[in-house]
Amino acid sequence: MTIRRLSVYTRCLLQLEEDGVKTVSSQELAERFNLNSAQVRKDLAYFGEFGVRGIGYYVSGLKAELQKILGLHREWPVALVGFGNLGSALFHYKGFARQGFRISAIFDDDPAKCNREVNGVPVLPARELGREVKARGIQIGIVAVPAESAQAVTDQLAAAGIKAILNFAPVRIRAPRDIRLKDVDLSIELETLSFYLAKSAR
Amino acid sequence: MTIRRLSVYTRCLLQLEEDGVKTVSSQELAERFNLNSAQVRKDLAYFGEFGVRGIGYYVSGLKAELQKILGLHREWPVALVGFGNLGSALFHYKGFARQGFRISAIFDDDPAKCNREVNGVPVLPARELGREVKARGIQIGIVAVPAESAQAVTDQLAAAGIKAILNFAPVRIRAPRDIRLKDVDLSIELETLSFYLAKSAR
Repeated sequence: MTIRRLSVYTRCLLQLEEDGVKTVSSQELAERFNLNSAQVRKDLAYFGEFGVRGIGYYVSGLKAELQKILGLHREWPVALVGFGNLGSALFHYKGFARQGFRISAIFDDDPAKCNREVNGVPVLPARELGREVKARGIQIGIVAVPAESAQAVTDQLAAAGIKAILNFAPVRIRAPRDIRLKDVDLSIELETLSFYLAKSAR
Repeated sequence: MTIRRLSVYTRCLLQLEEDGVKTVSSQELAERFNLNSAQVRKDLAYFGEFGVRGIGYYVSGLKAELQKILGLHREWPVALVGFGNLGSALFHYKGFARQGFRISAIFDDDPAKCNREVNGVPVLPARELGREVKARGIQIGIVAVPAESAQAVTDQLAAAGIKAILNFAPVRIRAPRDIRLKDVDLSIELETLSFYLAKSAR
């Protein structure tokens, strides 16, 4: 099962829990959230212990188990590097905090942006990155700088002992093998749409 | 084959073309871009006509074919709704234009942001959305407004005749069945990382 699908199910279960739903069958889950029902049935079969024959799954129990697998049962302090438009947007993005990702330090190389706090989070000069990441026990870094600075920032994060990097810069960067690196390419999502539009025009 | 993988291959081939590489084998492609080589071989086998036995694939020919399938051989005008931090970041995101997605009108309901141009693109009041989308033949809309306005904006885009919507608001929205809707949840990417960090801590 892909980790991405686990994330999607976790979101659906969170939503159901908020709506006060106690149990759900794989078919109800698929219908309600517009998912592939055969796939949902197959995936959730792994979690049989949270199921009740003829009824479905306990929403809260299954959600807690998936969150644990995804490492979402705890809080992850995150370092955000780059506080331009994208960095600001990511900082204010509500989805991160809801899943336990807490941006606990922001770094930028523009002195005008530094040495102040935003919603209680310090914005620091990039040269303090190494020290702060270690002092705060940060394992996850988000790269939100322009393409031309992305590799240098990645090298800094690696030297600071970061274990995982999420890269939003539209450029392929390299990191040491022991660091998990994930590139986010926002235009890939648009291409899914243009594929269908082009197909229906053919 | 998933559309997402087609997008990834297209990017790799673009990069190779920029580097002056004329032909590539599926194994070289996999190694260079850190992809699953069995998967690449299987996927590219569909495009045998662009292959040369014992050598691999013609980079430019294969790239052009994949771009055509993805609808990237033409330009798509895009409407961006919401011009806060996230909207600004998306507007300046270099990856969109490179793939042929051109934001050709921006809409916001804050009068202070409207009736001016940014890099030659007009920022217009949200109430002009319907007229402008039609006049400009826009088929793709990007929703970059706060969660609480996302559904209303989606309804407006649908009424204006938009065919595909990319939603960045961290909320599930509904659109008529004939509209392709894609939600982008930025925290899902972070969860892939926390999954591995949590696993290695177990």
